[in-house]
Amino acid sequence: MSRLVLRDLALVVTVDAGDSVLRDVSVAVEDGVITEIGEVDPREDDEVVDGRGRLALPGLVNLHTHLPMTLLRGIAEGVDLQGFLERVWAAEGAVMDPATVELGATLGALESLLGGCTTQLDMYFHHEAAHRGAVTAGARHVGGPTFFDGPGPDGLSWDERMAGLRAWPEVLRETGGPEVPVAAMPHATYTNSVEHLAEVASVLRALPDQLVTNDRRLDPILHTHVSENAAENTDLLARFGATPTELLARAGWLRLRIRSLEQPNPQTHEGERVSTGPKVVFGHGVHLSDADRALAAPADVTVAHCPGSNLKLASGALDWQRWRADGIRLGIGTDGCASSNDLDMWQAMRQAAHLAALTSGHPEVDAAQILRAATIDGATALGLEHLVGSIEVGKRADLVLLDLDQPHLTPVHDVPALLVHAAGRGDVTDVLVDGRIVVRERRSTLIDTSDLLDRCRDRARDAAAAAHEVEEA
Amino acid sequence: MSRLVLRDLALVVTVDAGDSVLRDVSVAVEDGVITEIGEVDPREDDEVVDGRGRLALPGLVNLHTHLPMTLLRGIAEGVDLQGFLERVWAAEGAVMDPATVELGATLGALESLLGGCTTQLDMYFHHEAAHRGAVTAGARHVGGPTFFDGPGPDGLSWDERMAGLRAWPEVLRETGGPEVPVAAMPHATYTNSVEHLAEVASVLRALPDQLVTNDRRLDPILHTHVSENAAENTDLLARFGATPTELLARAGWLRLRIRSLEQPNPQTHEGERVSTGPKVVFGHGVHLSDADRALAAPADVTVAHCPGSNLKLASGALDWQRWRADGIRLGIGTDGCASSNDLDMWQAMRQAAHLAALTSGHPEVDAAQILRAATIDGATALGLEHLVGSIEVGKRADLVLLDLDQPHLTPVHDVPALLVHAAGRGDVTDVLVDGRIVVRERRSTLIDTSDLLDRCRDRARDAAAAAHEVEEA
Ligand SMILES: [Zn+2]
Ligand SMILES: [Zn+2]
Repeated sequence: MSRLVLRDLALVVTVDAGDSVLRDVSVAVEDGVITEIGEVDPREDDEVVDGRGRLALPGLVNLHTHLPMTLLRGIAEGVDLQGFLERVWAAEGAVMDPATVELGATLGALESLLGGCTTQLDMYFHHEAAHRGAVTAGARHVGGPTFFDGPGPDGLSWDERMAGLRAWPEVLRETGGPEVPVAAMPHATYTNSVEHLAEVASVLRALPDQLVTNDRRLDPILHTHVSENAAENTDLLARFGATPTELLARAGWLRLRIRSLEQPNPQTHEGERVSTGPKVVFGHGVHLSDADRALAAPADVTVAHCPGSNLKLASGALDWQRWRADGIRLGIGTDGCASSNDLDMWQAMRQAAHLAALTSGHPEVDAAQILRAATIDGATALGLEHLVGSIEVGKRADLVLLDLDQPHLTPVHDVPALLVHAAGRGDVTDVLVDGRIVVRERRSTLIDTSDLLDRCRDRARDAAAAAHEVEEA
Repeated sequence: MSRLVLRDLALVVTVDAGDSVLRDVSVAVEDGVITEIGEVDPREDDEVVDGRGRLALPGLVNLHTHLPMTLLRGIAEGVDLQGFLERVWAAEGAVMDPATVELGATLGALESLLGGCTTQLDMYFHHEAAHRGAVTAGARHVGGPTFFDGPGPDGLSWDERMAGLRAWPEVLRETGGPEVPVAAMPHATYTNSVEHLAEVASVLRALPDQLVTNDRRLDPILHTHVSENAAENTDLLARFGATPTELLARAGWLRLRIRSLEQPNPQTHEGERVSTGPKVVFGHGVHLSDADRALAAPADVTVAHCPGSNLKLASGALDWQRWRADGIRLGIGTDGCASSNDLDMWQAMRQAAHLAALTSGHPEVDAAQILRAATIDGATALGLEHLVGSIEVGKRADLVLLDLDQPHLTPVHDVPALLVHAAGRGDVTDVLVDGRIVVRERRSTLIDTSDLLDRCRDRARDAAAAAHEVEEA
């Protein structure tokens, strides 16, 4: 297989440990791996992409979404989280069979990739179909079984869900696509009991070490919704006398990994380094209490901050600076399209920067930190930081090119600020995932987009009818 | 001159009084005026734009910006309003001669137009140069003389500024470009005395009725920064015992127009009576007190809400719902690129919707209201509502086409929500201002973009050097 060279890139935003920004360099990719960054000697059979006037950055990592809900974009406007869930669940119950889930996941992954987002932590039922759909579009898609105590929109029993979890590593391998960890995604502490949450964690931990990369096992992922809005906390405190985080602690989720903190937390014992074991990602985490954060930080929890969804549903404003100061790793997500209403990680980065300034009262969070959250920190949350999340020799090539020759990106006084506060989805021209060009000059190389959009519009009509019934009722 | 027909548009978002959305219609434009909307009988010499798969909406109105500052994009990161002003003023003093102002205004207007924003209320010194630059790009640009009590970055005396105001209607007419009102823009109550503010208002009111359209005089515009952040209020209360709004009241600005607030339709403002006279637009207005709003509403004041700048500089969060409930008309602006850091009105719309939800704690503001603020309400603030701000027969054709055939705009369950919460600058394909196609298939029809960007980059280097000196000092 010939080598791919991105030649004469105007800027490479590496997001390496020193946040290096390189000017006028080339990047070589062989067998999916970045082999050179700098001056690359040409070979006759190189496949060349002209990088002049282009900026390269690592593919963005969307740390909380529901890709198939892209079919429900705009279906529930002007309602808060609880009203939203009621309407959306009706639409989902009516239309979301496996074929529709696959269609919606393909649409969502395609939207993500065209906008420069290469990896998604995606929670949705009919997870096998969702994964197939996203992989078809070329995404590095982290999916996995979902869990509800009740029947859930897919009507599965608890035992069927657990069987799905045990089978998932094998299904994942058979489906193919870029390497990703095994993940399990109980919906929330308000839809899953502590006993069930504990069972999922213990089965996940006991899965055989089947997924090995670079002599390194990919730790599995546990993902759930946590303290998205104030009503959720109030409800659970009333029912169980515990916050969502405290319920997860009861379920053993906060003993799976031990992380040493610079500021030791009195409630947990210190470790020298982070131990291996399932990695926990909280979706939202807006209303974590001081005690919740003290529990979560030494357990190596990452919070997937979804500012667009939190603002639109008036769920609240996560305090970025405080969460960071308390040792919480922060990634960035869009949430599903029914609430946000798109999968635009550029929007989410800018919203995160804005909310950080608003909640702290000072414009202190620099754009480089936001960019790290949307790339390497998201990759770390998923245990993929040795593979992706930055542009460095030896990593897999998940990267994105932007067209700099545009009025709104001129002049360039500050590169990270340009990316967070001026660039956007429309500037993405080319996208590589695992070394493969999946978007070339703003078009998918894998999907017949026009045909896909037509099929999605057809299916969306049935969803609209179902949501409309709830609205009328 | 032949007729222009936008044929078979998939959707037309009219923003008329009933927020009508039309499907599969054509729009005819003759001599700059919209003459038909619906089925248009073809004529042989029609100039035709294929509207299939396209959505048309009125051109967006940016109600507060500083276009030439586009050259300073990203020059002052991580600082609040006061630190920002210090650094930016140094850069401006060093480089902003009339030629550079014209260059920056051309760049800013081009960015605006490519992103679907056709009208800008633009405050910047060397206003004649700024206006020339923006008109060159094809914008409906509302500019005018700026005022500082001190020498200001342009070094003019007060008498020279007043002479510039008296000459402005004539210069405006000579420069040409789409019809706009005369405007005068004192910088702020912290840089202009009450006496000077009063003098500007009285000269503006006494200007001859030179600007007449459709037998209707365009009321002149008074625009200034008001209560942008809390420190501004504190400072002025300490110095004068008055808020910025109270100082403007002392200067007579709130007696120029009288608006009856008895029972108008809060959505369309129908049924309200307003006297003629200069129209007042407050830039920002984040920290208006209850008393300030009670003074401003009956004076027909519009607040130009700039959520992106307010968030980035941690200036605060305007309470959209309360301001509206108190009778304040709200338009939307981006502020200048040194603080926001682009001129993206789509971002500003989404930010406005988000902040409205966050400040009220309820997701009640519908997207249609936000869209009105960014179009017809902005046009009304500028006295241009009989000419632009909606797509209706008899109005001038300031309108924008979007490409709907994209994953992130599929499916369409809710048209206004799609525009505010999913669409963006990158979706704009064609832009008409005053019936003239100024952007065609994402490219300016008037400007050599590549040459312009090169000249802007050259000039930006000198600005960076000046800002850097302040940073070091
Ligand atoms: Zn979610
Ligand atoms: Zn301003």
